[in-house]
Amino acid sequence: MKITRAHGNGGRQTAELLEKVFFPRFSSAPLNERADASSLPIAGHTIGHTIDGFVVSPYIFEGGDIGKLAVCGTVNDLAVSGFRPLYLSAAFMIEEGFALSELERVVTSMQQTAAASGVTIAAGDTKVVEKGSLDKIFITTAGIGTPFDDEMPSFQRLHPGQSIIVSGDVGRHGACIYSHNSDLGLDQHVASDCEPLVDIITQIKKSCHPAFMRDLTRGGLATALNEIAAGASLGVSVQETSIPVSSQVAGLCDILGLDPLYLACEGRFVAIVDAAHQAETLQLLRAAHASAAVIGKVTAEHPGQVLLTTAFRGTRILDMLYYEMLPRIC
Amino acid sequence: MKITRAHGNGGRQTAELLEKVFFPRFSSAPLNERADASSLPIAGHTIGHTIDGFVVSPYIFEGGDIGKLAVCGTVNDLAVSGFRPLYLSAAFMIEEGFALSELERVVTSMQQTAAASGVTIAAGDTKVVEKGSLDKIFITTAGIGTPFDDEMPSFQRLHPGQSIIVSGDVGRHGACIYSHNSDLGLDQHVASDCEPLVDIITQIKKSCHPAFMRDLTRGGLATALNEIAAGASLGVSVQETSIPVSSQVAGLCDILGLDPLYLACEGRFVAIVDAAHQAETLQLLRAAHASAAVIGKVTAEHPGQVLLTTAFRGTRILDMLYYEMLPRIC
Repeated sequence: MKITRAHGNGGRQTAELLEKVFFPRFSSAPLNERADASSLPIAGHTIGHTIDGFVVSPYIFEGGDIGKLAVCGTVNDLAVSGFRPLYLSAAFMIEEGFALSELERVVTSMQQTAAASGVTIAAGDTKVVEKGSLDKIFITTAGIGTPFDDEMPSFQRLHPGQSIIVSGDVGRHGACIYSHNSDLGLDQHVASDCEPLVDIITQIKKSCHPAFMRDLTRGGLATALNEIAAGASLGVSVQETSIPVSSQVAGLCDILGLDPLYLACEGRFVAIVDAAHQAETLQLLRAAHASAAVIGKVTAEHPGQVLLTTAFRGTRILDMLYYEMLPRIC
Repeated sequence: MKITRAHGNGGRQTAELLEKVFFPRFSSAPLNERADASSLPIAGHTIGHTIDGFVVSPYIFEGGDIGKLAVCGTVNDLAVSGFRPLYLSAAFMIEEGFALSELERVVTSMQQTAAASGVTIAAGDTKVVEKGSLDKIFITTAGIGTPFDDEMPSFQRLHPGQSIIVSGDVGRHGACIYSHNSDLGLDQHVASDCEPLVDIITQIKKSCHPAFMRDLTRGGLATALNEIAAGASLGVSVQETSIPVSSQVAGLCDILGLDPLYLACEGRFVAIVDAAHQAETLQLLRAAHASAAVIGKVTAEHPGQVLLTTAFRGTRILDMLYYEMLPRIC
């Protein structure tokens, strides 16, 4: 059996690979949580830790580049898990012949995004491989943070009736990468939503008591909602007409036959809050992105499943992502 | 200007790339230390953190594979910096078409080496790229540890008269990779020295008060000694005849025109101790590898330089590595 692109899509096949290869061998309490970032006891405290590899193609895209993405991906994983990002480390793998000026651009991007996220770049490594052994530049970032407060978001804090709020219109990053890669010869590209979420999550943590948060990366909104339903053993019910999708993303999806609910975001997240905190959460999120919206709620019914009420008032099960046309979204 | 293989050799060009591209942008107190692992203040404590990318070719070699190497590289960086490794995270980048059975082999290797090092694998990530965009499998590991004790090894603790001890014969890992890659059609390969150093360093920390330790990776013994001389602004004086090199490594170096002092090791380190602790340090190291040896001392003379007394009683400056024939040693 061979590794296929689908094993890296963040959806069902990735989950199968984790279950078959990684979890049986790397079994540990932090990994078993299946969170975006791991909670690690250390010297009587808890720290958050996460690692992510970035292989996006093209490495410069509308609205960002692999450097910005590599910082956002890691600080966002920490923040949605309830940790204020403090330190970031970065390992570069570079193809021989890559222009030094391009590396400087990518590293400057990382510097700016790290500053905007309040993290210190604390360790690094660089490897160069011979031409043809790696496509231009890959970056892996690891992050370390400390809890924002004592109220860690967790599946255990989810219960029926809570509101599911998305922080802005979905699918921009995936649509961006498709618009660069497709053979349509598009001369305009969708701008990625890639951005650090540390500031907005700091605000929400202060007053909205989010029970759970997850950033929408590979597999998009649909996959994140499925992970939530499975992790909490509760149902998730969302309304298609409430889910914000920009006309530009919707248009590209129509042309390419894609579903925006499965497209990756790199600067969007869902927050699940008690009904009492819905209005304030929405207000804070809308101050950053007017498209933020309440899209549904947690239910006692259909545990483990995500039900989508469609624009035509029908209902269908929204499954995890199970294929990926493009292998290098992030 | 383009990135060349030499920028990844761990020697002079790597240092230039760091000075030109990374340090000006990523300036931070932990990075400025230029240590194998960074000391990070967090919640009133100090933790050690490091990250390393692994692109070794071939990914399975005599005495190990990329999985074992990726764990050893990171736990060893922590241990020589005075931190007991506690947690490890791993990001995999895999070429589409890679055999699942091979991935299982590599992951099993990581599991075994992590267990032997006493670290918990706490976080992970997997990316798959399309065929031709990456040569088989690359792994990045990040590590987190806590100080073994209050006596952190540092350049500041170095002073003239201290003994420099190497933990075993040098150059095996580099010679191993050369023996796999060379066009000599060798059917016997040198076995890599790749191994975790956590146990032996735990023992040495208990009773030998090492002032400084550094593992010998890219650039080999000569580069590590130069980093020590530069970092401490002291001289380093070593005797060529005292430096242990196996006959197999020496023979391969003769054939290929290589200098074993510049060949990478992945399971060797130098410990610098006061003369009073030399005998006990050597005894502990020899119990693990009979080839461990006192190779020289720290001097007040020729600060910043490494002087090698040759077999013929001459003296020459041992410079940093300034070229690399092979781009993917680790």
